[in-house]
Amino acid sequence: MTAGLRVAVVGATGAVGREMLRCLYRRSFPVAEVVALASSRGAGGAVSFGDDSVPVRLLGPDSFRGVDLALFSAGGDVSREYAPRAVAAGAVVVDNSSAWRMDPEVPLIVPEVNAAALAGHSGIVANPNCSTIQLVVALAPLHTRAGLRRVVVSTYQSASGAGQRAVDELLAQTSAALDPERPPLPPDIHPKTLAFNCVPQVDAFLDDGVTKEERKMVLETRKILGVPSLRVHATCVRVPVDRGHSESVNVEMERALSPEEARSILDDAPGVEVLDDPGSGVYPTPLETAGTDAIYVGRIRRDDTVEHGLAFWVVADNLLKGAALNSVQIAEALLGPQ
Amino acid sequence: MTAGLRVAVVGATGAVGREMLRCLYRRSFPVAEVVALASSRGAGGAVSFGDDSVPVRLLGPDSFRGVDLALFSAGGDVSREYAPRAVAAGAVVVDNSSAWRMDPEVPLIVPEVNAAALAGHSGIVANPNCSTIQLVVALAPLHTRAGLRRVVVSTYQSASGAGQRAVDELLAQTSAALDPERPPLPPDIHPKTLAFNCVPQVDAFLDDGVTKEERKMVLETRKILGVPSLRVHATCVRVPVDRGHSESVNVEMERALSPEEARSILDDAPGVEVLDDPGSGVYPTPLETAGTDAIYVGRIRRDDTVEHGLAFWVVADNLLKGAALNSVQIAEALLGPQ
Repeated sequence: MTAGLRVAVVGATGAVGREMLRCLYRRSFPVAEVVALASSRGAGGAVSFGDDSVPVRLLGPDSFRGVDLALFSAGGDVSREYAPRAVAAGAVVVDNSSAWRMDPEVPLIVPEVNAAALAGHSGIVANPNCSTIQLVVALAPLHTRAGLRRVVVSTYQSASGAGQRAVDELLAQTSAALDPERPPLPPDIHPKTLAFNCVPQVDAFLDDGVTKEERKMVLETRKILGVPSLRVHATCVRVPVDRGHSESVNVEMERALSPEEARSILDDAPGVEVLDDPGSGVYPTPLETAGTDAIYVGRIRRDDTVEHGLAFWVVADNLLKGAALNSVQIAEALLGPQ
Repeated sequence: MTAGLRVAVVGATGAVGREMLRCLYRRSFPVAEVVALASSRGAGGAVSFGDDSVPVRLLGPDSFRGVDLALFSAGGDVSREYAPRAVAAGAVVVDNSSAWRMDPEVPLIVPEVNAAALAGHSGIVANPNCSTIQLVVALAPLHTRAGLRRVVVSTYQSASGAGQRAVDELLAQTSAALDPERPPLPPDIHPKTLAFNCVPQVDAFLDDGVTKEERKMVLETRKILGVPSLRVHATCVRVPVDRGHSESVNVEMERALSPEEARSILDDAPGVEVLDDPGSGVYPTPLETAGTDAIYVGRIRRDDTVEHGLAFWVVADNLLKGAALNSVQIAEALLGPQ
């Protein structure tokens, strides 16, 4: 790829698509032209790219003619159908759906962790699940130094992980719940009412009682870290937060790492900010960090119930580092140093 | 103690105190007279006991004259000062604060788990921390059958665990957050804004970066289960829920237990209801179970990242089984079969 690219954004009207456009713009990605694409629901309108208004076209078989780079965030079915067409038309695809992530031919990339795996891609590069990205950005530097044996994670995931309509539903349910005159608003996008509730279901259940989201966290973490046998256990929970995912993590390592050493390693790691002075109220929360690019780690402490154990708390903006920003960072890595 | 008791409730105007009065009434506890006590903030008003209105008196040195049973829920300082006075006046105290829980002379009781430990009490019986109660009710039957080795728990705790004012603050913050015309409402009771946020701090931090709440969960779980060396690691998080605590739990056991066996053991256990058919949307949430007495377990599944591992999700009403109901059940156990 060269400077001045024709960049398509598929799903341009969605929560992640809009963030992709903002990230491309504010990071001065070398865009010659934006091709904004959406299904019939979003097509016909317009989206912003900097100060420009870009018309949103209906996604179709000929959408990728002359496109150099296509960022997809429109669900697995759209990616399965259209990503190969975009590649055939000569584009490189960065796909934010789960469609291609576990394909052995497709690199699954978090640039801070495994940019080297981009080499030899065949046109499609997969962007990991939001919960996985923030986890591996924190795990990778610890793994490099001390060797991960086992990871146990419980998530606190915001409504925006399920899209803008899921956020709108949370806000509408919350308004209704606060007004004693109004009847409760039944859930539609969310599997249960999310306002003032915690719902231990993100995505659908598989046969063994695990959700797809939990399975993704296990398999994608292994693939990105390049440790196919890594033991990872996840419990994924939706909480009444609009934006930003949090994770409570317990790790067991091959070698001892004190909380101080872990803090120092994470502080030096790319993409990570350590916020960890709890006695002074310094630890990350999703409300305080929403809209920013880093993944934040705090509450780093010994887990002395196991050999070489540590526990910590990871927060990130699921729409930025968890989705749009990571996709744009992948595109930047594909371009190479400018 | 005999039937027809004079029962004092200390902290009668608080969220837990009011629930204590409701539990005493609806469970037909043999009450001859209610003595409602509060600090100067609550005294002078009245509380309900069934259809009766009971005047709230100011707590003082002579409050316990003639009292047979005193249920305390007014914080550690009040309990430290007044529980010994109540005992000296001839009452048995069931204390919901943390003041006496780890005193080796004081039984720490969850009736379904360790009612036998009531024998030989010296006048004060401690009611455990809310997060601990719902955890041990689920752990105890598994421990009996398969021997617990290690427990890792991450909590999703509601605002009501910090009292009615904390709930009011959450609701007021949430209203303000929903109205773009209104400025954000800064936190007062909660350490950070809780509306649309997750705050990994419940109670104050200790020197080693662990919160008091997390320490309580470790020490109280060991004491109640009678396993002083049990390995327990806790991460306690406040979530924007008004009522009901949830817990994501991973256990390692001495012996293998399949999810089916665990379901059957928990189904037969006192105080537990298994809600576990996730494919049909059956798993517990705090919103759906608030106001009920049981602790609810769902999402029971294998944790195959460790030998003999299981993971599950526990939900209970923190004001009922987590506080008021458990206190009244302790009082019932003290009375013995009627």
